[in-house]
This record gives sequence, C-alpha cells and structure tokens, in this order.
Amino acid sequence: MNRYESLAADLAESIRTGLLRPGDRLPSVRQTSASRGVSPSTVFQAYYLLEARGLIRARERSGYYVAARVARLPPEPDAASQPNEDTVLLDMSDRVFDLLGSTMDREVVPFGSAFPDPLLFPLERLARLVAASVQRLDPWSTVDSLTPGHAPLRRQIALRYLVDGLQVHPDEIVITNGALEALNLCLATVTRPGDAVVVESPTFYAALQSLERNGLRAIEVPTSPREGIDLGALERVLARHAPKACWLMTNFQNPLGSLMPEAKKRELVELLARHEVPLIEDDVYGELYFGNQRPAPAKAFDRKGLVLHCSSFSKCLAPGFRIGWVAPGRYAQAVARHKLSTTLTTAAPMQAALATYLEKAGYDRHLRRMRQALASRQGAFIEAIAKHFPPGTRATRPAGGYFLWVELPAPADAPAIHQHALSHGISVAPGPMFSASQAYANCLRLNYGYAWDARTEAALATLGRLAGT
Amino acid sequence: MNRYESLAADLAESIRTGLLRPGDRLPSVRQTSASRGVSPSTVFQAYYLLEARGLIRARERSGYYVAARVARLPPEPDAASQPNEDTVLLDMSDRVFDLLGSTMDREVVPFGSAFPDPLLFPLERLARLVAASVQRLDPWSTVDSLTPGHAPLRRQIALRYLVDGLQVHPDEIVITNGALEALNLCLATVTRPGDAVVVESPTFYAALQSLERNGLRAIEVPTSPREGIDLGALERVLARHAPKACWLMTNFQNPLGSLMPEAKKRELVELLARHEVPLIEDDVYGELYFGNQRPAPAKAFDRKGLVLHCSSFSKCLAPGFRIGWVAPGRYAQAVARHKLSTTLTTAAPMQAALATYLEKAGYDRHLRRMRQALASRQGAFIEAIAKHFPPGTRATRPAGGYFLWVELPAPADAPAIHQHALSHGISVAPGPMFSASQAYANCLRLNYGYAWDARTEAALATLGRLAGT
Repeated sequence: MNRYESLAADLAESIRTGLLRPGDRLPSVRQTSASRGVSPSTVFQAYYLLEARGLIRARERSGYYVAARVARLPPEPDAASQPNEDTVLLDMSDRVFDLLGSTMDREVVPFGSAFPDPLLFPLERLARLVAASVQRLDPWSTVDSLTPGHAPLRRQIALRYLVDGLQVHPDEIVITNGALEALNLCLATVTRPGDAVVVESPTFYAALQSLERNGLRAIEVPTSPREGIDLGALERVLARHAPKACWLMTNFQNPLGSLMPEAKKRELVELLARHEVPLIEDDVYGELYFGNQRPAPAKAFDRKGLVLHCSSFSKCLAPGFRIGWVAPGRYAQAVARHKLSTTLTTAAPMQAALATYLEKAGYDRHLRRMRQALASRQGAFIEAIAKHFPPGTRATRPAGGYFLWVELPAPADAPAIHQHALSHGISVAPGPMFSASQAYANCLRLNYGYAWDARTEAALATLGRLAGT
Repeated sequence: MNRYESLAADLAESIRTGLLRPGDRLPSVRQTSASRGVSPSTVFQAYYLLEARGLIRARERSGYYVAARVARLPPEPDAASQPNEDTVLLDMSDRVFDLLGSTMDREVVPFGSAFPDPLLFPLERLARLVAASVQRLDPWSTVDSLTPGHAPLRRQIALRYLVDGLQVHPDEIVITNGALEALNLCLATVTRPGDAVVVESPTFYAALQSLERNGLRAIEVPTSPREGIDLGALERVLARHAPKACWLMTNFQNPLGSLMPEAKKRELVELLARHEVPLIEDDVYGELYFGNQRPAPAKAFDRKGLVLHCSSFSKCLAPGFRIGWVAPGRYAQAVARHKLSTTLTTAAPMQAALATYLEKAGYDRHLRRMRQALASRQGAFIEAIAKHFPPGTRATRPAGGYFLWVELPAPADAPAIHQHALSHGISVAPGPMFSASQAYANCLRLNYGYAWDARTEAALATLGRLAGT
C-alpha cells in the first residue's frame, strides 16, 4: 500500500468507526499535508479515492465533507457472470441502433450515453492548435504521409507508452479513425469468417456487432465486475473451442468498470501465448484512472508480439477528432495494409494538432482535472443510487472510467425500464445490449460522467422509481 | 454540338488543314470572342478542349499556340479490353502495397501516383476555415452529431447534387472517411462472402483489394478506353453469374480515363435494374471534367434506389482531410449502420470546415482553375509521349481527371519497366495492378496532373527510352 492509499485507509477507518460523521468537514489539503508529513498531491489522491468510493464529497470552494448515508451504499454485484460458454452466432438486430439513436438527443438525460461529458475537454485549446497545425501543414504531407499515420503523432504516442514503462516503437503504431476502427482492423487481420472469438460477458456491444458483421462466432466468458475475465473459464474455452482471438477490455471495462489486476493481466497474456491466441486489447479508458498511476495494459507483459493494443483520444482528450491507434505487435504490417485498403489514412490536420498538443505537455494537467471530476461525480452518483433505487440494488464502484453497472433486484426488465425512462426524457443502456444471448435483463449501464446537478439527481430519482415498479 | 465544341471543331480543322501551323499563336480570347460573337467563357472552354486534345498549348502570360508535332500524337488504344468473363478469386498479394510505397517518396517523379498535385488545392484558405470552424465548434456536437455526419455538410452536398440536376435528400447522404470507406461500406452492405461482383477491366486496384478482403469473386468485364464498360458483355455476365453488385467508375475511370456517355449510363442503370443488381458508382473524378459541364453520374438515371453513388473531396478540394460520402439510395440506413459499427463517425472539424468552404462559394472558382491546369498538363504530357515513346505506343486522351493509360508495343513488361524507372527516380503504375488476372503487362497508368516542367519532360524521356528497350 502506498502513501495515498494508506492515508485513505486511515480516513475510511475514521468514517467507519464514526470518528468522522456524515456532514463533517475533512481537514483541508494543506492541514493534512502538514499534519501527516506528505505532499499535497498525496492528500489529493487520497481524497479522490475516498470520493470515488462514495465516502466523501467535494463541495465547490469549501472543501471535502463526509458523505451522507454512507452505510446505505449499494453492495457490489456478485463475483462473476455465468454465461453459457458455447459459441453463439449473433443477431444484434436493431436494438443497439435504436438505443444509440436515443442517446444522441441532447435534451435527454444521458445515463445511457457511451460518451463522456463534452464539457470535460480542452476544446478551445485544441481548436487553437488545429488552426495552427493546418496553417503549417506541408501540402506534400497530404500525399506522402499516408498510412500508417503522421510521424510526429506516432512518436508522441510511443513516448507516452515509454512513460508507462512500455517499449513500443513508433513504427509499430498505426493511426486509425478512432479505437473502433483499430479494433475492427485487428479483428479482420487475425480472423476469417466462421472463426470463434472470445469476449467478456457482459461485453461492449460494438464487439458483438463487429463479430456479427465479420461472420464470427462469439464465446462469452464469465467476467467479474471487479477483476475482469475469469481465467479458469478462459482456459476451458481455449481448449474446447480453439478461438482465433480474444477481444477484452482490461482497464475499466465497458460496461462493468472492472479493472484486471496486474498479476492477472500477466497470467492472461501467458495463457493466451501458450495457445498462440492473439489478444485484441481495448484500452480506451486506461487514462481515466482514479488511483495513483495508470494501470498497465496487458500489452506490458507481451513477449511474443501477440497483443494488439488499441486506444484513442476520444474518451480522454478530443472527442469528435476520431483519432485512435493500435500497436499491433507482430501484426503491425498486416494491420497497416488493412487500413490502407479500407480507409487509406486518417485526417492529417487532426493528427498534426494532437501531436502538437501532446508535445506541449498540457495533456497530464488536463487528465488530472478530468479524473478528479469523474471520481467526484461517481461518488455523488452512487450515493443517489443508494437513496433512490429499490432495496436489493447492487452497483459496481469502478476505480476509473465513467460507467456504473447496476443490478436491479430480479425480476426486472431493463429494456422496458429503458422505454419508460425515455418517456421521462432519460436514457439508460439496458443490460441485454451487452450480451450475445440477451442476458442481463435486470441490469443497466449508467454513465455517471456528466455534471452532477439537481436535474441529474432528479432524473436518477425518477429512474430509481421506474426500476422499482 | 454546343457552341464551344463547334468553335473547337473549327479550330481543329484549321490546324489539320495547315491554316494554323505548329508554333502559330491563336487569336486572343478577347479577339475570338468578338469575332465569333460568343462569350469569353465559351472561347476558354474551346481552348481547354483543344489543349486537352494536345492540339494547342498555353504559354504563361502570352496566350495559346498551336502545338508542335501534332501529326505525331500517339493513337488511342483499341476499342475494348478482352478479359476472361469468368469469376476470379483474388490474390493481390504484395504488388499493390509495394507500388504504393514507392509513390510516397517525394523525391520520386510521381507518374505512378494515385494522387493529384497537392499544390493544386486551396490549402491556405482551407486552413483558415478549419481554424474558424474548430473555434466555433459546439462541444455537444461531438456527442450528438455522429453518424451519418455533420448536417450542414450533408446539406451542401445535396445542394451540389441539385445544381447538377439530381434530387438527393440530405438525409440519404452518409459522410465517410474518404470515398474508399464509402465504397467499402457499400460493398459490405450489398454482398456476402462468396458472392460475385462485376468490375471493369482494367479496374481500380482498391476495388480488387476490397473484393479480396471480403471473400468476393471478381468478374472482369471488357471496358472501352473511351466509353467505359461493354454493356453487351455485362448483360451476358448478369445472366450467367448472377452477380450481387457492380462496382464501376462512370466518369474518367481509373486507370483508363474513359467517360461513359449519358445514353450509355441510362442503359446501364436500366439493365442493372432489370436484374435488381445494385450499382456501386465510384465518381471521385467527376468534377475534374474539361468540357462544358459536369458529366452526370449514373445515379441521375436511377429510379429504383439501386445506385449507391460514392464520391469525395480528396481529388478535387481537400486531400488529407479524408472526407467522402455516399448517397446509397434504398441502402441508406444499412450503410449508415455499417459506418456506425466500423468507424462510428467522421472527424467533426474537417466536416465543419468543408461545409463552410462549400457555402462560401469559392469551390467553383477553384475547380475551374484546377481543370484548366490539368487540361493544359495533359496536352504537354501527350505531346511528350509522342516525342519520346517507342513507335506503336498508344495513349488515351481522357476528357477529365489526371490519368493516362498507355499501351506499349507488345511485348513489353510493365512491372520490369516500373523497377527500372524507380532506379531512375521515376514511378509508374504498371498495368497488372489493375487486373485480377494480372493482364495488361504492356500497359502503364501515368499521372499527368503534376506541374509540367523540364524535370517532368526529362523523366518522361527517360521512361520512353526504358519502355522501348
């Protein structure tokens, strides 16, 4: 346990024992820093962590307070899902598209949205950089800087890998139209129609759509809401179905928010390597951690070039720019060729602008602010769920990202709740979207990443009422 | 024959009969306009047409002159290709990627390039608009303006269709990452692996790559260098192979430069409609015409919603922005869904900037200048081919675009010529790239769209020497 975790544990203990009571103001960061002999940033980290766990709340310009009703926070969901580990041919039909349509209306409270609050991003600064980059753009670069992408951006991404302890050469990196294109290129590179592919259960619906579009069979493997995919189950599936790829989200999984511990990631990579199965790692939420440092991707433990690490700037810096990338290990050339013959290359001005932004080092400051906002919003959100949702409700408490997975007391009909909620101007993402077999009818994925205000709390109260009927 | 064609025919006759001789200066535009009683723009159109045919040459700031060696212009190629009309499973292997790599080196003379001269584009003006657009960008638009694209841009594209006499509703239009994504989305929408798809012979290599990647079989149909695909052969193929789609370039086909006459386009659309076969129409060069008005796309004759019309701004306005689109007729919703689950959406700032550019009406002025430059460069290029290539060489004289198709006297080995040329710092696109069966070993596609100067003429002389050995 490092310093901030130790400080957080002490404070949590004080809250549990009643030394600090609901509504009490915590000592200021400056006071605690002095009294504990730790840096202010350590205190901030500890406070963020407690906030993410719903134990304390920030009030603007007046400090941190012990949260109300701590005792009533909903419990976390059970250990792991129990999907049928057989292969399934998919039929995602219209339900995903209908849901997505409903979340794009800005008048609707966006609990069902897949996107973070657009006001969290440094859009003005980015706009200035785009302007400057385009004005400096070498006309010839539109001809000769094609696939696999703008060299300075690939270098900046490689440098960020390095900071996180990974050696990824810029030449390995392919810039894509967002992470979704990266994931699709990887899938097309390592599979052929009819192949089986391992996914988590529940899993990101776009993975199911991609499998369906490519004529692939899905194998859904049990996944813990806290620690990700069940490796025992995965091992059985590898032996039984000889899947051609594994598509996982190792950090703050969508929809669960689960975070695979480092040791487990290492085990995962070794297990897949023994079977020579490539891992398509979707790591778009990795930068949105509430702890002390970025959780490593599984790619960090790859020795055989079998991990295709996909990420993007869409969730953490520049939504709408559609800049993602993949570091595809031994598949780098094959992925670049798929990119060349599907979308050729990615918009040059967007790439140049992001390269400049990353180089000028505003990124980490922005990310710290964004993580703090998300952690704080999660705390408020979980508290309100405790207050407004029916008894027996469970909810995950992810250590990053902006999704909660809520299990309603059975029987519940999430698609029906979604329809009722929409008629009240509220969207949710119903559980069956995240499952090839349309399981999880009693579950909802909720986006807690938008500004917390009276309207949000009222919407959550309405949703809790609908969930209980 | 309209006014400018009639004027051009008169002048061509004067040149043929020797009334005007090589090196003679033509009357100025003002003089001709006055003497003929036609508008200066009609005279310009006539001069462009004669220039495109290699009969006259512009000299900067001094007017138009009768071209030298008119009698020695190479003849055009024979009527139509004769491919085997059977279906072929593809193996494009590495040859296309190797060629593309070689054309991206800016030190190499880019006769093999697929891209137009980047200096032909209004990049400075675009840069200013991108800057302004990004600064005005509504943060929420990054969340709610997703697929199928930025509404103002879709409206501007619909308005351009209207100017050209086509009724396309903005809601039908899906914005894509360049035309290549549009074409791939269309192909994925209307086919399943194993299906047969009709293409021209020779055809754009990316079509062959897409077919290969999607597990489709190609049927290559004879195509005239002047007038496009042979409808009789197409009819036989429709009866015999029941293809699921037809992928054609109706205007200034790549690589031939052929332009399908309007009546033939109408016949094509009616023929395909009788067989209920969708037409994927690649029309990226349509705006680069040298005549009086934009040639209509086949889409103009579509009554059943079976034509999926694909185009982009990459060849005519904004290379590197990666903004294309498709008007997919009855397949609009299906194409939008494919887009949503493959690359989600297209970079918002790029879309907003182009919408502003189109609205402010600088586009037509830019296009006029660009067409004039290309027509003039084609004239110089064909003359130099006549001068430097071996006797028996044939070359197309497209009425638009920036590609020539050159047939060398057999036997010739275009891939070997490509390798030799590269060692002299010159790229070419060898004929076999454009054929599933690697035919056209005696053919080259040459890009005449770059600035004409002494280095270009010297490179063409070197190439002519290599082609003759």
